[in-house]
Amino acid sequence: MKSHTEYLTFTTASRRDYLNITRTIEGIVAASGIREGLCLVNAMHITASVFINDDESGLLQDFDDFLERLAPHEPIGQYRHNRTGEDNGDAHIKRTVMGREVLVAVTNGRLDFGPWEQIYYGEFDGRRPKKVLVKVIGE
Amino acid sequence: MKSHTEYLTFTTASRRDYLNITRTIEGIVAASGIREGLCLVNAMHITASVFINDDESGLLQDFDDFLERLAPHEPIGQYRHNRTGEDNGDAHIKRTVMGREVLVAVTNGRLDFGPWEQIYYGEFDGRRPKKVLVKVIGE
Amino acid sequence: MKSHTEYLTFTTASRRDYLNITRTIEGIVAASGIREGLCLVNAMHITASVFINDDESGLLQDFDDFLERLAPHEPIGQYRHNRTGEDNGDAHIKRTVMGREVLVAVTNGRLDFGPWEQIYYGEFDGRRPKKVLVKVIGE
Repeated sequence: MKSHTEYLTFTTASRRDYLNITRTIEGIVAASGIREGLCLVNAMHITASVFINDDESGLLQDFDDFLERLAPHEPIGQYRHNRTGEDNGDAHIKRTVMGREVLVAVTNGRLDFGPWEQIYYGEFDGRRPKKVLVKVIGE
Repeated sequence: MKSHTEYLTFTTASRRDYLNITRTIEGIVAASGIREGLCLVNAMHITASVFINDDESGLLQDFDDFLERLAPHEPIGQYRHNRTGEDNGDAHIKRTVMGREVLVAVTNGRLDFGPWEQIYYGEFDGRRPKKVLVKVIGE
Repeated sequence: MKSHTEYLTFTTASRRDYLNITRTIEGIVAASGIREGLCLVNAMHITASVFINDDESGLLQDFDDFLERLAPHEPIGQYRHNRTGEDNGDAHIKRTVMGREVLVAVTNGRLDFGPWEQIYYGEFDGRRPKKVLVKVIGE
């Protein structure tokens, strides 16, 4: 069994943002030399998400609207977590709804994807460097 | 390390449907010959889900009601995504709440399940063929 | 490839509870002797969750409030599932929102975690023994 681990860092300009990281993950799988296996991609911070969906700007805004409706950023005081002096109580919940991680099959040396699958980094408390872990295992 | 990959195709009669695919996945694990490892099952389309829950018809309707309350199908115009001419903005959100994938331990050649765990394919934009990937790795 | 499987049992005193199980999982990874691989941790019951987030009591209460707002326990009669004589329809939905499982990279013999990541067992229908599966594969 082979394994290959890389760490990516993202600093978004705004509090919330959605970055398509598919090409980067494809490059890591190619570099790993693994032909058959699994590729784990996870946020290492608990106010960010890695998820798979469509590369369509309207849809990304729909997700953002949906999450703001479910767990609004303001008023800050609605979250007990923010009594610690933080203002990101909503971001912990938003990331949980969207998911921490994705696991993608690697087949014939490539991400084994359906026609529209794209890997996204979802940031809910940005404007500072945050990490994503990529681990490929297989043969 | 061994690996075994199969693709399933489902065409549901209605827009939304919930199919118990546990027996099919058990058959794939048996065919793989893998005794100890992991079994990934994921929707390859971004408007469908694979999740684990109970085989109880009332509960499946509860999930459907819950998802319709969170992200209703109509009015279509509430989703920016539908400005592209599609009508499945809600399906992208519903699938995200339910999850894209499950990862199940394989122990002694079988899905290592609790007493009530069943694998479901959740369709949110059906009436056309859509794929599910199954990949078993291990030894 | 090596694999190592353990089962944990939790009986919470209240219906809903959130237990930090990180130290226990670290111990299992150490006992496995696996240096590079993946560690799956999943609830084996369909009314409980395993998720990763912060060890902060206010945040855990925020999650509980959020889940009660999304899928309240009462009135019991709002869930078709409860017509079977059960009262845990809400617990099935809460667990789905929080997730069944986490998959954590194992690097240099340890859980490869960001600074705040902690593994939680989320119970939504407790007061009886329920199991969690931990499987580590790798080399």
